[in-house]
This record gives sequence, C-alpha cells and structure tokens, in this order.
Amino acid sequence: MTVKAAFSADAAFKLYEQVMNYIEVRIERGEWKEHERLPSVRRLSDDLGVHRLTVFRAYQELKTKGRIYVKDKSGYYVQPPNGRVDREPAEDPVYGSWARADELSRIHSIQVDYQFSKALIDPALLPNRFWSELMTNVFREYPKLPGTYSTVQGDAELRGALADHFSNTGFDLSADELLITSGGQQAIDLTARTLIRPGDRVLVERPAYGPAMEIFRRQGARLLTVDIRPDGYDLERIEQCMRTEKPRLFYINPTFHNPTGFTIPAAQRKLLPELAERYGCVILEDDSTYDIHFGLKTPPPVFTYATTGHVIYIRSYSKYVAPGLRIAALACRAEHMPGLLAAKSLADNGSPLLNQKLFLHYFRSPRMQQHLEKLCTALQLRKETMERCLSDSGWAWNSPVGGLNLWVRLPRQVDMRSFLQAALTQSVSFIPGHVFDPLASMENPYIRLSYPFANEAQIREGMRRLLSVYESLK
Amino acid sequence: MTVKAAFSADAAFKLYEQVMNYIEVRIERGEWKEHERLPSVRRLSDDLGVHRLTVFRAYQELKTKGRIYVKDKSGYYVQPPNGRVDREPAEDPVYGSWARADELSRIHSIQVDYQFSKALIDPALLPNRFWSELMTNVFREYPKLPGTYSTVQGDAELRGALADHFSNTGFDLSADELLITSGGQQAIDLTARTLIRPGDRVLVERPAYGPAMEIFRRQGARLLTVDIRPDGYDLERIEQCMRTEKPRLFYINPTFHNPTGFTIPAAQRKLLPELAERYGCVILEDDSTYDIHFGLKTPPPVFTYATTGHVIYIRSYSKYVAPGLRIAALACRAEHMPGLLAAKSLADNGSPLLNQKLFLHYFRSPRMQQHLEKLCTALQLRKETMERCLSDSGWAWNSPVGGLNLWVRLPRQVDMRSFLQAALTQSVSFIPGHVFDPLASMENPYIRLSYPFANEAQIREGMRRLLSVYESLK
Repeated sequence: MTVKAAFSADAAFKLYEQVMNYIEVRIERGEWKEHERLPSVRRLSDDLGVHRLTVFRAYQELKTKGRIYVKDKSGYYVQPPNGRVDREPAEDPVYGSWARADELSRIHSIQVDYQFSKALIDPALLPNRFWSELMTNVFREYPKLPGTYSTVQGDAELRGALADHFSNTGFDLSADELLITSGGQQAIDLTARTLIRPGDRVLVERPAYGPAMEIFRRQGARLLTVDIRPDGYDLERIEQCMRTEKPRLFYINPTFHNPTGFTIPAAQRKLLPELAERYGCVILEDDSTYDIHFGLKTPPPVFTYATTGHVIYIRSYSKYVAPGLRIAALACRAEHMPGLLAAKSLADNGSPLLNQKLFLHYFRSPRMQQHLEKLCTALQLRKETMERCLSDSGWAWNSPVGGLNLWVRLPRQVDMRSFLQAALTQSVSFIPGHVFDPLASMENPYIRLSYPFANEAQIREGMRRLLSVYESLK
Repeated sequence: MTVKAAFSADAAFKLYEQVMNYIEVRIERGEWKEHERLPSVRRLSDDLGVHRLTVFRAYQELKTKGRIYVKDKSGYYVQPPNGRVDREPAEDPVYGSWARADELSRIHSIQVDYQFSKALIDPALLPNRFWSELMTNVFREYPKLPGTYSTVQGDAELRGALADHFSNTGFDLSADELLITSGGQQAIDLTARTLIRPGDRVLVERPAYGPAMEIFRRQGARLLTVDIRPDGYDLERIEQCMRTEKPRLFYINPTFHNPTGFTIPAAQRKLLPELAERYGCVILEDDSTYDIHFGLKTPPPVFTYATTGHVIYIRSYSKYVAPGLRIAALACRAEHMPGLLAAKSLADNGSPLLNQKLFLHYFRSPRMQQHLEKLCTALQLRKETMERCLSDSGWAWNSPVGGLNLWVRLPRQVDMRSFLQAALTQSVSFIPGHVFDPLASMENPYIRLSYPFANEAQIREGMRRLLSVYESLK
C-alpha cells in the first residue's frame, strides 16, 4: 500500500485525522525526533496527496494537543513527551479538539451550587451509617486485615459472593472468572493494556465516555466510531467496520449509556457477541450503573448472551455503593484472565484487601438491596424533577429508564463556550456534548445534564437559572 | 544509520538481544503481522550481517517468550498478542530467558514451611492490634468516608502529614509535590507510563527488582544495565551510558537494595542527580524499605541531593506498615506532576480515601515510631540468625545494614534448577539470583535469601535443611 492510498475520504476517520495519525505514528516511532522540524505544509500535502488545508488543520490540531510546537514562525517542531504531558492547561479548558479526560475533571473542579456536570451520586444518598459497625465486624473476623495482602485476582470470598449473585441474575460465571479491580476505570485500563497494541483499531460508541477513549488512545489505538441512538446501534455499520477495519476491541456501555441514557435493545444484545466472534473482536462491556433502573428491570448484559470468550464485562459498584472503597469486578472467560492478571500484578499487585472485605460484608447484608431500592427511587425523583423543569423549554431528550444523565438537545445552535461560561457565572454546571464526541465534530447542540448530585430543590433552582441563561443568549 | 551498523558486539545489549529487539519492534509496528511467516534464519542473518547462530538464538528466545511460534518445522511465525499474553505457564516456571515478574510470583505461590523466597514481612511483625480502634476514630471524624472519592493526587491531609515528616528528615518538599499511590508498584508503573515511550532506553541496576523491569519492557523500553556492587555503581559506566545511549530513566534502589542489600555511598548519591541533569535523564529512586535499618541511620535519599527535577522518589509504606492498605507516596518536582496526575487519573481515578485516612491516623500516632523500632529489632535478629546459620558454610555475602535480603554467593557452581527443586522438596524456598538479572546471563551462583517472613526457629531449621540439600548435590 502506498502512502497516498492510505488516505481516503471515505474511511472511518476524517481526512485531517488520518494525517494527524500519520504524523503522530512517526513521532512515536522516533522517525521524527524531539525538537526536529517537521515537513512543511506544502511538502507534506504533496507527499500525502491531500489538500494543504487538510495538513494545516492536522498541524493545528496537533499543536493544540501539545504534540508539536511552532517556533519563530519558521515551522512546526516535535514537542518532547515532557512538554506534551506537562504542559500548562490550555487557555480554554473545554474546547480542545478531542474530548479529553482532563477536560471533564476541569469542569468538575469548578465549584458551583447547582452541579449538573458530575455524573456522581449525592453523598447523602450513599450508605454511610452502617460502615463503622460493619468495620468492627470485619476486624473481629479478620484481625490481621491491614497487614495482609490481597491476591492479585482479588479476595476469593468476595469473588465467590459476586459469582453467586451474578449466577442468580442470568450469568453463567464462576469465581475464577472474576477479577477485582480498583473501580471500573482500572478495569478498562487493564483490558486496554492487555489487548491493545499500538496501531490497533478500537471501535467506540459516539458519543462515548471520555476517559475510556483517552485510555485507548494512550495505548496507541486508532478510534473508530458507531453512533448510539435511542433504538440502538447501526449493526450494518458495526459489521462493515469489523469486517474492513478489524478492530481489536469494541468498547460499549449499552445499559443506561453515558452520556445519552440510551439502552441497547435485547435483539442487538444477542447479535453483538456473534459479530465479535465472527470478526475476532473483543467486546468490552462497561456496566457501571447496572443497578440504577427506574421501573423496569435492567436488561441482561451483552455478556450473558455470549457463548464464547469475546465479551469482557465490567460491573462497578464504586459509583453507587462506595466511591471511597473503589470496588469493581471484571468478568471474563479463561483465555483472557492470565493476561489481565499479569497487567493487574504490574499495575498495583492487587486491590487492597481491607476494602474488599468491607465491601463483601456490605454486599451480602440485606442493607445492600435496601440501599439500591431507596437510591433508585431517589434518583428517579430527581430525574423527573429535572424533566419537569424542561417540559416547556423546547429542549429535547429521550427519557432514560435508568442511569445518571439526561442527554439534551437544545432547540437551536448556541455558542457553547459562551453558554457554559454564562451558566458557570450563575453557579450552574453542565457538560457540552462535544466533550463526549470521539470525532470532535458534533454538529447538533447537545449537553449532558446529570441529575444525581443536586437535590430536588437545587435541581429546580439550577434549571431555572440554566434556562434563563439560555434565553438571555438569544 | 544502516541496519547492519545498528548491530555491534560492544553495545550494551548482547548481539542476540539486539536481534530480538529488531524483530520485536517490527512485530509491534505491525510490519510483521500476526501469523505471518518471519524471514528464515539464513535470510535474516544475511540482512543483519550477524551469524546464523545469533539469529537462531534470538528466534529461540522469542519462542520461549511466546512472541513467535514454530509451525510444522516450516518456519517461525508471529504469535498474536492473545497467544502471547494468555499462553499457558511454561513447563518450567523458573528458568525463562528473562527475569519475569510472574516467575517470582510462581515461586512464591508454592507453599513451604521455610519461606526464604518472599521479601515480605511476617504478618506477626506488623501492627494489627490498633487498627480496629483507629478505624472507629476515623469513622467518627469522617462519617461519610466510604461514600467519598479521594482526589486523584491523594488526600490533602495525608500529603500534608507526609510532607511535614519528609521535611523533618532532610527533604525540601511540599504537599503539592506528593502523589499518593496504591503501593510502590503503582508509582513505578505510573512513572513508566508517563515518561517512557516505545524505544526509549531505561538504565537499570544489575541485579534488579524484576517487576520493575517487566513494567519498563512492557512500556516498550530497551533496558541497559549498570552493575551494583558493595561499594556502589561504576559511575564511569553510568556516565558513558547516559552520554551515548541517552536513557530516559535510570531506575535505582540505592538503599538496602533488593536483592543485594547494598547501599550506595553518600558521595555517589550526590553525583547521580548531576549526571541525570547533564544528560537529560530522570532518576526514579525506589525506597521501599527506607525505615528498615539496623543500627546506623538510613542515609539521605538521592532525591534530597537533587537541585533540579531530575529525581522522582518513591517511598512505600505498604510492605512494612500495612500491606492490606497499599499506601505509598511519590515525590517529584512540579514539572512531572501534571503528567503523573493524568496517568493516575486514567489508571484508577485516585487511591481509595478510606485507606489514606486510616493510614494517616496510624502514621501520625506514636504507634508508628514504636512499630518501626520493634520491627527493625526483630528483623535484625532474624538476619543475624540466618547469618549465624551460614557462618561455617563457605557461602559468601555482604552483611546488609538494612532491608530484607541476603544476597549469597554459593561456593561453587550448581545446577540451580536441581538445587531449587530439591530445596522445595524439603519445604524450603529461595530465589535463584538469575531471576534478578536483566541480561539473563549471570555467571556466578547467587541466590536471594529473605529473612523477614520466617521466625528465628524456622530460619534455623530451614537453613539447616537448605545447607544439607546443597551438600547432597555434590
């Protein structure tokens, strides 16, 4: 394949992104070294057979990303890794060319009274009262707990209890097929490090959870996207993509999806593992809000439909049971476990045993179920409160049947930067939709509003302010 | 540089290792794809200008590593990542061609009565009695602890207490320059992920701590080595290596070094940061047994001599205070913190807050100092017991002034595999020295004997058995 043939307008990537990737790969490989001058725009556009503006855009984006820098207007140069990683926050934290993990955390770091940007649960809704008592019991049962290492795979007793629970809810799973991780984030990271090699393709939903995309990109993956819509995925697009691009991984969040709240229908859940098997792709199913459902039962995960090892499943309890403990479980078939154990061993040698035992005691107590029932009711009330505030606004959304977010389309284009700044000035926060766009080219004005952090009174006042800010932009 | 010129006999790598690296890089880049047939031995030896036996050895080593496979005697083929990562344990877990992290854990996994293979502290020597009481206090002070996230950098109160303590012991350090990690292992991993790019050189001690080497190699680093000797490093070798090979990182464990027990003298500690600064290298100083000293005070860490940001320092309390909590601290100057925070955020979003608060309460109580004093006495007694057992054996070692290990040279060559198997049959474990050799070419018969896990009676009986096994091999 010649260089030129690799750049085509109908590929899954936009042309300028292909050029960016071309440049980045050469920097990574050391072919273009630190502080070395890059080819001129004219030269590279000739070499690659693309328009000069396409190369110009790629260089601009790489500059924004801190991969290259401009010196004395004489040209573009390779930024050393230190300069890249350690650079100062950009002037505008929100409007990078890519949805980046730290954009989210920067918005989150702004203190506001009406917090709709964090998909985090109000600490007042989390179990707090019984931990101290549980801890006393745990120490009585395991007096040497702080002095004892966990195994790398995680406490056998906890894995046994989780396997029993999963088996009672449609999973065919043994304790050997579970790995305890420090939150769902670590489970994504370990999977990426185990399966993805530089240059591998990873298929992701669009929109998608930002930190996961950042993990894949850091692992050297090239991202491909499939839209997630209220009625599910475009399966033909998935099949075509798997056939032609052979992605190593398909990262999905099919249940109460973040940020959209959409839930993939059962018919598609059955087909996805078949597609993955046919094309040698592994599906990574992130189920971080499984228990947060309103009314109807949560549908069986994609993992439960798989007859082969082509689905890896993440259930995190960190968000909605105990963020301070950071307990999640990864479920996979035997072929993936040795690699994941090696990665976990190198990453941190196993999650702390204390946390696993404490969570275990909570998990198998009746309080767990009581907590989940109360939590779902409280979150449903908050969601409905937010939806009522929006009922006459002209803002559009699909009412989610679970999860933590409303994915709202504004009735007209606005300058998202001005809107967010004005809202923050009124002490209201939200996340602009493009932060979740792996392609950084979202056309419609979406925003994500999270309802689990603010209470109902705060939601009413915050939404009043937000709508008023929006009106004032006219 | 032509291909042939890159392969020379006087480079830091052995010739066959350079060939291995040449092949691995091409597999990583996808130039040689999964299940693709590799060039024949004859062809590659012609291409690279090396002897056929060198290529043959490289292929054999790559086969052992699971990077390539042989089919029907028709040639060598690229093993897909899954096959690599998920392969079955080799027949003989101990004798791979490289010191690998899982070799250690496999030896550790064998249950024996006389445990000299684990550099872990006997749980009976760790503080166990006061945690339950501390926990009650912690919950009283922070009732919502299990429901509260830590910041990514770690609890400000804990960082403040650590910064105070460090400042009282010769460090010039603020809380902003500390990052709390889940054990020292994670601190190494985060540093590697932040600083090392594929193809970067990393200088390591020889012998060295195995899991760290595995982390660097997985990050795509090429390892270079400098011997660690009782009187320190060969500084000329370090300078030459830094000048010609430009390593990105120099990973050191200069205090009660694992596995040798050697301690780098103060004069070298002063010079190392200067060398690092001069050649743009970052020193990663792993200080996981800082407080375990016998008699003399522990010398000031290399970090305390640095006047620039060229040293990153890891102090882990996991091993000798609370393995079940997994608390370590990484200290670095401002230029490294943003990159490390981004890596920590993607890795696990911050260590669990519960563990940090619990450790903090222990750390600032008088019990911490009392524990360390008792622990050092107990470990010194165990060390001296083991040394007395060896006094008439003809085995040779430098008596360490701290740490957890004796690095012992046997008086004659033995078949290490037979020796270990025979010892295990007698319920005694140790680690063959070559496991710690990054070059996998150790000539002298060293073994590592760890004294902190077995009590004195066990040490006496275990050493009696070990010496008797050794004699029987004659």
